[in-house]
Amino acid sequence: MFESATFAHHLDKAAFKAMEPSLREDLLTAQFQLIEQKRRSLIVLIHGPDGAGKGAVLNRLYGWLDVRKLQTLTFDMPCARDDRPAMWKYWRELPPFGQIGIMLGSWYHAPLCKRALDEMKRGDFMAALEDIQRFEAMLHAEGVSLLKIWLYLDPEEARTRLKGVTKGEWQRPVVREWEELKGSGPRKRLLAISEDAARATSTETSPWHVVPAADEEYRDAMAGSLLLEKLRSLAAEPEPAPQPLAPNPTQLPSTLPTFSILSTLDLSKSLDEDDYDRQLAQEQSRITRLTNSPRFADAGLVVAFEGSDAAGKSSTIMRLRRALDPRHFRVHPIAAPTDEERARPYLWRFWRHIPTHGRTAIFDRSWYGRVLVERVERLCGPDDWGRAYGEINDFEAQLSAANYVVVKFWLAISPQEQARRFEERETVAYKRFKLTPEDWRNREKWPLYEAAVTEMVDRTSTRIAPWTLVESEDKRYGRVKVLKTIADRLEQALG
Amino acid sequence: MFESATFAHHLDKAAFKAMEPSLREDLLTAQFQLIEQKRRSLIVLIHGPDGAGKGAVLNRLYGWLDVRKLQTLTFDMPCARDDRPAMWKYWRELPPFGQIGIMLGSWYHAPLCKRALDEMKRGDFMAALEDIQRFEAMLHAEGVSLLKIWLYLDPEEARTRLKGVTKGEWQRPVVREWEELKGSGPRKRLLAISEDAARATSTETSPWHVVPAADEEYRDAMAGSLLLEKLRSLAAEPEPAPQPLAPNPTQLPSTLPTFSILSTLDLSKSLDEDDYDRQLAQEQSRITRLTNSPRFADAGLVVAFEGSDAAGKSSTIMRLRRALDPRHFRVHPIAAPTDEERARPYLWRFWRHIPTHGRTAIFDRSWYGRVLVERVERLCGPDDWGRAYGEINDFEAQLSAANYVVVKFWLAISPQEQARRFEERETVAYKRFKLTPEDWRNREKWPLYEAAVTEMVDRTSTRIAPWTLVESEDKRYGRVKVLKTIADRLEQALG
Repeated sequence: MFESATFAHHLDKAAFKAMEPSLREDLLTAQFQLIEQKRRSLIVLIHGPDGAGKGAVLNRLYGWLDVRKLQTLTFDMPCARDDRPAMWKYWRELPPFGQIGIMLGSWYHAPLCKRALDEMKRGDFMAALEDIQRFEAMLHAEGVSLLKIWLYLDPEEARTRLKGVTKGEWQRPVVREWEELKGSGPRKRLLAISEDAARATSTETSPWHVVPAADEEYRDAMAGSLLLEKLRSLAAEPEPAPQPLAPNPTQLPSTLPTFSILSTLDLSKSLDEDDYDRQLAQEQSRITRLTNSPRFADAGLVVAFEGSDAAGKSSTIMRLRRALDPRHFRVHPIAAPTDEERARPYLWRFWRHIPTHGRTAIFDRSWYGRVLVERVERLCGPDDWGRAYGEINDFEAQLSAANYVVVKFWLAISPQEQARRFEERETVAYKRFKLTPEDWRNREKWPLYEAAVTEMVDRTSTRIAPWTLVESEDKRYGRVKVLKTIADRLEQALG
Repeated sequence: MFESATFAHHLDKAAFKAMEPSLREDLLTAQFQLIEQKRRSLIVLIHGPDGAGKGAVLNRLYGWLDVRKLQTLTFDMPCARDDRPAMWKYWRELPPFGQIGIMLGSWYHAPLCKRALDEMKRGDFMAALEDIQRFEAMLHAEGVSLLKIWLYLDPEEARTRLKGVTKGEWQRPVVREWEELKGSGPRKRLLAISEDAARATSTETSPWHVVPAADEEYRDAMAGSLLLEKLRSLAAEPEPAPQPLAPNPTQLPSTLPTFSILSTLDLSKSLDEDDYDRQLAQEQSRITRLTNSPRFADAGLVVAFEGSDAAGKSSTIMRLRRALDPRHFRVHPIAAPTDEERARPYLWRFWRHIPTHGRTAIFDRSWYGRVLVERVERLCGPDDWGRAYGEINDFEAQLSAANYVVVKFWLAISPQEQARRFEERETVAYKRFKLTPEDWRNREKWPLYEAAVTEMVDRTSTRIAPWTLVESEDKRYGRVKVLKTIADRLEQALG
């Protein structure tokens, strides 16, 4: 990967000066297309050993581009103060479509560093690279393009340069990303590992570009040219073809009976009032105790509620609410996205609500909207919702890896019970606001929702974040089952 | 303030049950008007001793209202982990217009608690209440209404109830806001202090409502009724009358010569290239050193750039950028607000970018937009920009109190120099994007801007955050002055 970069590459200062004005103009023209189209954002990852000029390239690009639509995205190594999942900080700073972000200290940083220091085993390192590849594929599919630049500098040369810095020959701050890697042993190791990583994570859509960095002019001109090429290719992308909005891509013969996972539920399950009062209090008390326990300070709880209209999401959340300290949880009702949310990948609206450790986030409808309502109502194409299963599994795996307990409920009722509840909402004054004419219309799509739920459960019920289908025909039974499930999962996780 | 609450207040369970459905319906109707109008948000502050039922009232309101437009805003006491200004967390969670937030642990919490524990002197306490009053007045004027409820409970009764909790008689979590206040001495002191505070901060627009809390039904019915009354009064507010969009409210006789603070500047100041190179490097180096010093870890730097078009904001920021570690600063170009920003008070868009300690935020145009472009271009009325001076002074005072160094620059050039630079932008290809026809048109408003700048400097150049007017006719002189000012201010602050 780094072979050709080890040879001398040079660009005359005069030649650089001569090419700079037109490169600059072309870059601006291309950047304006990105801004105008607002279809994509672009993140430029700049990596390489300390001394290769990561900060200098960043500053050069700032000199060339329109800085008003440019963001610097720079991250330190993960540290003890990060009390959210590792990927949260990257999500949080994703630039909106139309903008460019230049990133130092990307998601490659920690695995490369840890592996070079031998704090990470080879298998884990390869798994981390796999995760990164999937993450980058998701970004690309969701509108965030990547330009990955590796500044190559011979380790000896890098060492010489860094010595110059500490001796005060240079006045400018140098981003010392690799401070942990002292001495030439780990640094050589880093080089070898980086080469492997760059090879392994060079995909068709997001390849690494190795830029020889010994010569400043060559380095900057090359970085600028790569950026120009990337921006031009983005501008030339055809408008995405309208996807066929099919509610279900599986074309099975209609003679085959369709299976619904919901049909397996015994909706006659119920609880009498005394049992309900007792069990509800008991489960609330368990949840109170568990979320107040010292172990929960290093964990988190993320609960997603899905279900048919009128299945009892709100009233169940109300019972859960009473078990939790109001200072340490938030309920997030998921409605139409804001413009800040629309300008970023789908999962951004959920990532932004992931709480710190010791806290709970309750989602009243969730990231499963894409494979439920958006699929059934044809609000997005099969490419989008078809891809969402994997993206969601990755999202939940990242939460789980950061010690968050992810609990997901589908609250199920029969169509008859739903009709009965709708009618009740029509007659009881303070329930009327909960019913719209649309709710009645949606009932026609019941079979489509059943198919969507079945596929959703099959594809996203993982060991770390299994689905719990809740028989909610009897409200009391449903509520107790939800609270008990949460208490059990917490107990299991906190030991 | 608490006199009448000390007498017995009681509501029959049966009477409560009888009134609940219509109260609930009325609340929902009134809430929907708030949602529809989207003109205001409402924050319900619930205060009172532990045991009075703050959490219970919150849960009751959740049972009555449409929870999809309801947020819980709950805050712990300030702690060492808060490395932003004290008010930042309240700003961050402000609900958008159309929504209701119920707040426990509000901005009253820390002063009341500290004063009850005698950790705060009387004078400081009164000053804190003053600050709160101004903050609340700002919220009200900016579209955030407050309903402040004090749950009154006799201290002895509160003690008895809390003992019950610790003995496990109650299963529900109780928000223990006042855990620090153990024993009856501090608790009685808290009561007296709270009474003073409630009296002092009961203003016309945001009075305290004292609700006797010994009887659950009475308490909840009263809280619900107060909320209903408040929502109805908000709904009945007339549409704000369009303000006369006068660029300048001061109607002085035109025979009086107008004074411009900018006319006092000697724009002939300049630096030759050698001096420039040397001094620039020197000031950059000072800034690098100061922002990397251990003392800066408990401080922060907020820099605001304003100035005429083409005065050199971007190119100056570029020089500042090179002095800073890219991991620890962000530049925020201020453009049109997003819909999330428009749905909240004006300063919210700036508060959200205030960094943690140890970091720098650079604003390319800033919160002064309201008293500059918005005033001159008549984008808001004189009420709005007239009020902004005080709001901005409070904002900067809060930053300064939290150890942030606030540095503000107006980059000044002559109209002739601006014309020259505009023409240069027209001819140099890569500068063309920086010029729009609007820029030429804006030149006609030069005298209006001079008047606005003069008033702005007079009213917001404070000891803690003075304005620095920068003679930028000579770019080199201007850049060095900016960097030197930042270095001086940092040096002075960090000692």
